[in-house]
Amino acid sequence: MKKSCIIFCIFLLTFSLQAQQSKESLIHYVDPFIGTAKMGHTYPGATVPFGSVQLSPDTDTIPYAFQNKYNPEVYRYCAGYQYDDPTIVGFSHTHFSGTGHSDLGDFLMMPTVGELRLNPGTASEPDKGYRSRFSHDKESAEPAYYQVELTDYDIKAELTSSTRVGMHRYTFPETNQGHVILDLTAGLYPYEGKNVWTFLRIENDSLVTGYRQTHGWARTRTVYFALKFSKPFKSYGNEKYDEKQVYKGFWGRFDQSNNFPEIAGKEIRAFFDFDFEDGEAPLIAKMSISPVSTAGALANMEQEIPHWDFDQVKNEGQQLWERELSKIKVYMVDPDDMVNFYTSMYHAFLGPTVYMDADGTYRGLDQNVHQAEHFTNYTSFSLWDTYRALHPLFNIVQQERNADMINSMLAHADQSVHGMLPIWSHYANENWCMIGYHAVSVIADAMVKGVKGFDHQHALEASIKTSNTTYFDGIGDYIDLGYVPEDKSGSSVSKTLEYAYDDWAISQMANYLGQESIASQYRKRSKGYTHVFDSKSGFMRPKLSDGTWKEPFDALDTHGQGFIEGNSWNYSLYVPHDPEALIGLMGGEKSFVNRLDSLFSMELPEKYFEQTEDITKEGIIGNYVHGNEPSHHVVYLYNWTKQPYKAHDKIRNILKTMYQNSPDGLGGNDDFGQMSAWYIFSALGFYPVAPGSTQYAIGSPLVKSASIPLPNGKTFKIITKNQGEDKVYVKAVYLNGKQIDKPFIEHSDIMDGATLEFHMQNKPAK
Amino acid sequence: MKKSCIIFCIFLLTFSLQAQQSKESLIHYVDPFIGTAKMGHTYPGATVPFGSVQLSPDTDTIPYAFQNKYNPEVYRYCAGYQYDDPTIVGFSHTHFSGTGHSDLGDFLMMPTVGELRLNPGTASEPDKGYRSRFSHDKESAEPAYYQVELTDYDIKAELTSSTRVGMHRYTFPETNQGHVILDLTAGLYPYEGKNVWTFLRIENDSLVTGYRQTHGWARTRTVYFALKFSKPFKSYGNEKYDEKQVYKGFWGRFDQSNNFPEIAGKEIRAFFDFDFEDGEAPLIAKMSISPVSTAGALANMEQEIPHWDFDQVKNEGQQLWERELSKIKVYMVDPDDMVNFYTSMYHAFLGPTVYMDADGTYRGLDQNVHQAEHFTNYTSFSLWDTYRALHPLFNIVQQERNADMINSMLAHADQSVHGMLPIWSHYANENWCMIGYHAVSVIADAMVKGVKGFDHQHALEASIKTSNTTYFDGIGDYIDLGYVPEDKSGSSVSKTLEYAYDDWAISQMANYLGQESIASQYRKRSKGYTHVFDSKSGFMRPKLSDGTWKEPFDALDTHGQGFIEGNSWNYSLYVPHDPEALIGLMGGEKSFVNRLDSLFSMELPEKYFEQTEDITKEGIIGNYVHGNEPSHHVVYLYNWTKQPYKAHDKIRNILKTMYQNSPDGLGGNDDFGQMSAWYIFSALGFYPVAPGSTQYAIGSPLVKSASIPLPNGKTFKIITKNQGEDKVYVKAVYLNGKQIDKPFIEHSDIMDGATLEFHMQNKPAK
Repeated sequence: MKKSCIIFCIFLLTFSLQAQQSKESLIHYVDPFIGTAKMGHTYPGATVPFGSVQLSPDTDTIPYAFQNKYNPEVYRYCAGYQYDDPTIVGFSHTHFSGTGHSDLGDFLMMPTVGELRLNPGTASEPDKGYRSRFSHDKESAEPAYYQVELTDYDIKAELTSSTRVGMHRYTFPETNQGHVILDLTAGLYPYEGKNVWTFLRIENDSLVTGYRQTHGWARTRTVYFALKFSKPFKSYGNEKYDEKQVYKGFWGRFDQSNNFPEIAGKEIRAFFDFDFEDGEAPLIAKMSISPVSTAGALANMEQEIPHWDFDQVKNEGQQLWERELSKIKVYMVDPDDMVNFYTSMYHAFLGPTVYMDADGTYRGLDQNVHQAEHFTNYTSFSLWDTYRALHPLFNIVQQERNADMINSMLAHADQSVHGMLPIWSHYANENWCMIGYHAVSVIADAMVKGVKGFDHQHALEASIKTSNTTYFDGIGDYIDLGYVPEDKSGSSVSKTLEYAYDDWAISQMANYLGQESIASQYRKRSKGYTHVFDSKSGFMRPKLSDGTWKEPFDALDTHGQGFIEGNSWNYSLYVPHDPEALIGLMGGEKSFVNRLDSLFSMELPEKYFEQTEDITKEGIIGNYVHGNEPSHHVVYLYNWTKQPYKAHDKIRNILKTMYQNSPDGLGGNDDFGQMSAWYIFSALGFYPVAPGSTQYAIGSPLVKSASIPLPNGKTFKIITKNQGEDKVYVKAVYLNGKQIDKPFIEHSDIMDGATLEFHMQNKPAK
Repeated sequence: MKKSCIIFCIFLLTFSLQAQQSKESLIHYVDPFIGTAKMGHTYPGATVPFGSVQLSPDTDTIPYAFQNKYNPEVYRYCAGYQYDDPTIVGFSHTHFSGTGHSDLGDFLMMPTVGELRLNPGTASEPDKGYRSRFSHDKESAEPAYYQVELTDYDIKAELTSSTRVGMHRYTFPETNQGHVILDLTAGLYPYEGKNVWTFLRIENDSLVTGYRQTHGWARTRTVYFALKFSKPFKSYGNEKYDEKQVYKGFWGRFDQSNNFPEIAGKEIRAFFDFDFEDGEAPLIAKMSISPVSTAGALANMEQEIPHWDFDQVKNEGQQLWERELSKIKVYMVDPDDMVNFYTSMYHAFLGPTVYMDADGTYRGLDQNVHQAEHFTNYTSFSLWDTYRALHPLFNIVQQERNADMINSMLAHADQSVHGMLPIWSHYANENWCMIGYHAVSVIADAMVKGVKGFDHQHALEASIKTSNTTYFDGIGDYIDLGYVPEDKSGSSVSKTLEYAYDDWAISQMANYLGQESIASQYRKRSKGYTHVFDSKSGFMRPKLSDGTWKEPFDALDTHGQGFIEGNSWNYSLYVPHDPEALIGLMGGEKSFVNRLDSLFSMELPEKYFEQTEDITKEGIIGNYVHGNEPSHHVVYLYNWTKQPYKAHDKIRNILKTMYQNSPDGLGGNDDFGQMSAWYIFSALGFYPVAPGSTQYAIGSPLVKSASIPLPNGKTFKIITKNQGEDKVYVKAVYLNGKQIDKPFIEHSDIMDGATLEFHMQNKPAK
């Protein structure tokens, strides 16, 4: 092709992309407030896809200093923001999305006017602190943009972000008492002793650097920052911290509270003073973060946002979102469904997050600084949640990122003193949250689906090493006995079931790589679930190390019964890699279908619901708990019976009731995109019941049509004929025009750019 | 030259060096125990010249946990070891030499046998802890080597070191209960809250890495380590630390006390268990440290000591010492003098210490990691002490190192948020100890003496910037008023006097660089001392900001009189850069000589001595305090009068009484070599009264002869005719055979390789 021709083509392409973007802007379907009320644990603030910075308002962080002890209310503030709260404490730069535990909330900033107050105050007495009242009427959020009016100060605060830099635009009223508070003591999930150390340097009259080191969910976590203001502050200072904590020595000569350019200690709340004239241009602040150093943070800022153009950053962030959202284009009849779909897409692309400086250096699990060679390093792997549907979704629309997430997990294993892949890892730490070793599922799924860009053999070896860490969570007994004995390790049935599935995933990898003896060994291990099935009660049930069942046993109870975040009714259905065998164990198909029917129709007594974690009352249907993860595959198990139609109304019911277009619209924690990924798959009409397999179970699509432009240039299309709110039953499915006779499709069908056509009706297609 | 010829020459050179070393081994004159009793604050352990590791026994560290509060006894343990103590707590890897404050004591290790005890116990009840009794009969120390028998355990412990790696050789008895304790809570100058964080990874069965982060004299200091054992430990663990301090979460699943390979928290005491057979080879442990990372520590170990040959490390360390000690070869009649001289040389070359990894990376004052480009980075600048004689000594025998010390100070200034040169800096921190900005003296002295290897203009600019930091310690008022007013900033007279001298040093730099306007400006500032001279009392005296003298005034009192670590009697003589003007102020030569005579002869009442810091009773002669620094130049001021002979007996008296060949032989803190440098200069017969000048004042040599082989190939020689214990007066001095008529020589005389010949007699040469 001639050069002029290439240029012309690029022009055409650019033009057509722009035209397309203006034609249908998907970001407008996203409502970042969905999930910010009750149990959703999402945040409304500004971030870019998989961005390191999540710049978002915190409506309470409950610093222990004001509560004197651990406060269970911290759970409500996993993402910092609760929609029903009347005040905003400030804007901090790091947040998890949808998690059921938390950390982060680093570098809380708050603009104020008037008397300087350095404590946050309380929601009931906001005037005693720096926080401000606000109203949802004067608040809005879009991807990469958030704005609110801080009523108490007559300040309009706007937030946007690039990958590593958060940008604040504060429109102050006329004042000679303008302040920006930088509270390094604030943080999510605070408690006494969480702040290990903080450090602050006033580099010049508009640049500040420092770090915050915490001991929380991440045992040893340090985040570095650089903060630049668009105009010089006139003065600055910090609160007098507890003198006991600080060695004074010759430092006593300095007034470290006022205009002294460096400070360090356990508890620092700093302020920067400004004057503003009437009509003066807004103050802009850029806060960049780094896992490595303040020098790294500063370099990140210089690379990503060297200028002061807030609107440019916002526009670039929204273009990034538009590109990601357009990876699945859907048309849905109900406008609310469009909002729910693209908000799910938005939530699905919030994490794992980039965890390295612009130059590729990052802090590893060994706390040393490493250079990411030929990959982007990611962190915050909520794997017990996200292995189920989020990473499988990535294997369709984020293959390159998913490969790098696997590269990040392999680097983690290399740096791990245990040699283990991550369980739940964030910010150069393993927090060991939940159970299983589901990184192997993520790897197996990517491998069998032909995802390139990571070392398959290395991945298999790390998986084997992880699964043989005998001192971890009952693995030693599991290997010896075939199950985890409840008297040795609690939640033993959940562990046994999940290890069994994970081992099947390893066998899939080994099989894919042609290493049959390993595959065979792990296929054998994957039968572990049979050891905890009690044929008498018909339930998975905790077994003791002497081989007897633990007494008493209550299949409805979530606590003390050998399970975690689920009861036996739900968990007994967790054999995703071999539903047929499960059906056999449970007495055959008829009995199994009855079991599934009962799960959705039975009434769960109040006392059991109270024990159910992480979900709202709405997150449950009968005894089926959609608001938490262990049952996410369950409704699709009907596909292994002769009555797959029984799944259809239930799927559509879940899609409509568990995901709603309102702040309290999520039936449980979004869990870093897993809940959202379930929605995306199910709305498209299929679901990956057993990641590590190439098979998807067909469900009942909510879309009228969908198209997924694939990296290979092909497009996977979904068309739903006779779609409607009452037409939830699938009558027939055509793959490239040919009716399929089993309710499954293959990953290769999608990647080959097939057209999947659903014919719907309002009655079960028995 | 032909290749074979070169090889032959190298052979000859090697042979002759070896021959020379075996002929006269100077290291045998060094007694590392000198100064370890009372106030010397030296340590007896193993280190190489300017080494990063100082591996030495600590006889008490008084952890606050066992004292419950700050204990003033910590002062005795600035170097960790007090000769009169009956027990050894363990061997830690970092120590200051001779300082009057402390920090460090990192990574205390102790081999034990029998029941595992993880607390150190107390000197009165050693059996309750891991410490051991010991006897000086079974203890010895040489440069780069220390050994002791730990009586309670029948263990012989030997220590040696390279620059960044400490090596332990423990000969255990037969036991199946052998332990090595690694106490990360131990440290020098401990108090509540000093340990900020510690981190430990058991990498495999013989390698451990980790770090210790403290908040002490250095506000934010982290030292990383790697520890390798010559044989695998059979088990390991750590003490159960305070559960309150540690977020548990899912960590509760692990028994982190026993054989769990990673641990972090504020307080960690770890142990490693070994079995030993009768006659089994000793256990060797290598502990390397790094300012950067555990990876850096491990690389340092691999580079410096990849093997397990303890004797090789010891031999190499002693060869390094031999090379350094032989930079001044002296012959002295009294064998004790030889010991005192070479022990002084040894102490003078203990610091500043190398502070960078083998690859040249180091942690800077901004807490970022930097690469030292073309210089060796040093730390631990006790500048208020060492600018006086130690750095001038370096300008004769350690020019290259001194240039790199200046490069290190310039890097510090570049990294400083204040833009300031170090005051008292250690381990990537400024501790602001003492007064003045004496880095400028070090720079000026090197500059005027033609030392190459640093950027002169950069150095001048950093000096100017430092001297204009108006918010530092009264500098603003000093610039405005010409003196520091006592009502604004305490110790105001000491500050005024030292700033005046420092400013003269800057003027010397500017003059050397031909920048006359700056030189003139700083010459003017250097007259500041005139503002605090009270002609009525005849003393330097604190003045208030309104220009009046502070009342009451006591020229003997060290406290509350405007001075620091000295009284007005001593400090009033501190105008080293212009003794003639001082003599004028003090009423002319007769009055001045009387003043000097009185200083040495008057009796200081007990109540004043009690206030005198950092010295033993023996550290004082009359009211002259040699055991602290402000008067170190004073005796040489006789040279500016017509009675220089009055200095001679006093110098010889100081040399003989303040420096003795015994553990309590030092009259005060050695202060990182300053006391020793005074000894070396004075024993050679001259002293740098005003660093920044090229002039040395002639005194009374203690050597019979001396030779200083210079880097330029020349040799400076000193010959003392008619030397003897009673012949302390100099009758005549010949420079290259020509009698000199003034009691001064020039730096160029030394560097040109002159011969200085003293003719002595037993009567004053009036």
